[in-house]
Amino acid sequence: MKKFINDPGDVVAQALRGLAAAHPELRVDPENQLVVRADAPVRGKVGIVSGGGSGHEPLHGGFVGPGMLDAACAGEVFTSPVPDAILAATRAVDGGAGVLHIVKNYTGDVLNFEMAAELAGDDDITVETVLVDDDVAVQDSTWTAGRRGTGATVIVEKVTGALAEERASLKDVAAIGRTVNERSGSFAVALTAATTPAAGRPGFDLPDDEMEVGVGIHGEPGRRRAPLAPAADVAALMVDAILEAKPATGTAIVLLNGLGGTPLLELYLLYGEVAALLESRDVRIGRSLVGNYVTSLDMAGASLTICHADDEILRLWDAWVRTPGLRRGV
Amino acid sequence: MKKFINDPGDVVAQALRGLAAAHPELRVDPENQLVVRADAPVRGKVGIVSGGGSGHEPLHGGFVGPGMLDAACAGEVFTSPVPDAILAATRAVDGGAGVLHIVKNYTGDVLNFEMAAELAGDDDITVETVLVDDDVAVQDSTWTAGRRGTGATVIVEKVTGALAEERASLKDVAAIGRTVNERSGSFAVALTAATTPAAGRPGFDLPDDEMEVGVGIHGEPGRRRAPLAPAADVAALMVDAILEAKPATGTAIVLLNGLGGTPLLELYLLYGEVAALLESRDVRIGRSLVGNYVTSLDMAGASLTICHADDEILRLWDAWVRTPGLRRGV
Repeated sequence: MKKFINDPGDVVAQALRGLAAAHPELRVDPENQLVVRADAPVRGKVGIVSGGGSGHEPLHGGFVGPGMLDAACAGEVFTSPVPDAILAATRAVDGGAGVLHIVKNYTGDVLNFEMAAELAGDDDITVETVLVDDDVAVQDSTWTAGRRGTGATVIVEKVTGALAEERASLKDVAAIGRTVNERSGSFAVALTAATTPAAGRPGFDLPDDEMEVGVGIHGEPGRRRAPLAPAADVAALMVDAILEAKPATGTAIVLLNGLGGTPLLELYLLYGEVAALLESRDVRIGRSLVGNYVTSLDMAGASLTICHADDEILRLWDAWVRTPGLRRGV
Repeated sequence: MKKFINDPGDVVAQALRGLAAAHPELRVDPENQLVVRADAPVRGKVGIVSGGGSGHEPLHGGFVGPGMLDAACAGEVFTSPVPDAILAATRAVDGGAGVLHIVKNYTGDVLNFEMAAELAGDDDITVETVLVDDDVAVQDSTWTAGRRGTGATVIVEKVTGALAEERASLKDVAAIGRTVNERSGSFAVALTAATTPAAGRPGFDLPDDEMEVGVGIHGEPGRRRAPLAPAADVAALMVDAILEAKPATGTAIVLLNGLGGTPLLELYLLYGEVAALLESRDVRIGRSLVGNYVTSLDMAGASLTICHADDEILRLWDAWVRTPGLRRGV
């Protein structure tokens, strides 16, 4: 295993110390593995909390800041955060208007966020939850009942964060988050497996001439193994899978996301193929984002997310945001 | 070789097609491998051109836009752009106030930018050049007489770009670029070698238990091979090497840069070690940036850049910028 770490058992807390050093505008608690925007709770604003296993950076801690998340809970690598941490985050961001939990659909995350929401209810904090399950590759998976939550999480976090800044109600913020999720589909292809610090070797075996089609962000199996294919073919199978599950309507926000080990040069090349295909399928790309946003450690691979947006979603996507991972307008 | 490409001989132009699709606010010419900001030339503003071999994305094309570069020339992977392309870029951004060339110190880049500057002179375009040679690891290298240009290029491009937006003279814009370079030192460590599409296999052999200390961004040899070490030790050897060559003065801009294949989780962990060390060495970190900015395709590794800034450099670093790779304030 070749990694910039000190101790495989203490990676997440040490990385959070680095996040704290790099971003004094955030309140980072490495011990409880929380990242909170410095001015939380914001009085009268819906607080937004997300979180999940680490190893997907910049998700979620890199999206904490004005215009997006109020707090993120970081679990150990590929492991859900504990209910106590989620409860602490919920309390830290409750400004009296309720708290939204954005939860990727993995069994551990769902259970722990549910438990934290119940405990927050005992504190008279109203919690609504948006479950993100955009990955159209498989119906159930290793750690999932139903579809997995992946790239659309970034769009849900951005759009709900923008609406919350406008002091919309918890009901409305949750509603637009659910709309974004319903209108989004994602599909990923892996060329290599990720190596977690704890395991010290790749999470699955993938021959040199094969790719995993429909892989999950923890290396969960996809639909099939297939021979390595040109980027144009990879783009086609991603686009086909997504548009079959989520047929085109309106203008799309398109996220071509690197899984961690794939260079930007390849991501742009792949995006060019995706864009040409979408044009031929009468999908209008209204906004796009190319880069590493929801990663799987050092996995070479990419995911495509298509969100069929309406004017309101586009407006909120365009709104100002200031986080380590996404910034515009400020 | 596992990459998202179609044809190993046509990677850069196809990636530029993707960049064009993702960034309609840029004028991208995939055939001549140019990226130009849409409103160029800006009348009365110094035009800023950089460029170099591809494979280091987001450098340079990802830094084209208001507040930073006016144009970038992309060579083939790890290959200098040709003089004709640099000349075309220089002409495209000449708004009557002269053009600055920002050139990383590699023999091919230096020669081709020199030739383009001469040809531009024949067109009565005044060209000044800032040579970036911040990599303190080795004095001469595979493709270099003198030190190599690496991470400081981002800071030079940002700071000169901001000053040019204020309509400063070519002389002043060049001068601050040179000052940033003189005040900056960089040092890189590789855990794996990059694989170019043309070669199809890693550019050098690196045993599973070793790292290349002082590596170049094309995989050029560094100072030595060393046994894999904890992140704290890697941070120490980077900081020591840089501060020995560029002793601390003033407030630092610190860039902890991923070389392409290293996850953000590790980069933040390594940054935490760097920040603690700099504090113990009485270096005040004024600004920081952690992520993939000057990469070497899929190389696992990281580089540290320390720029001992003055108030003017900090002010220009903080100024608004709108590029695919760096954005703030707009």
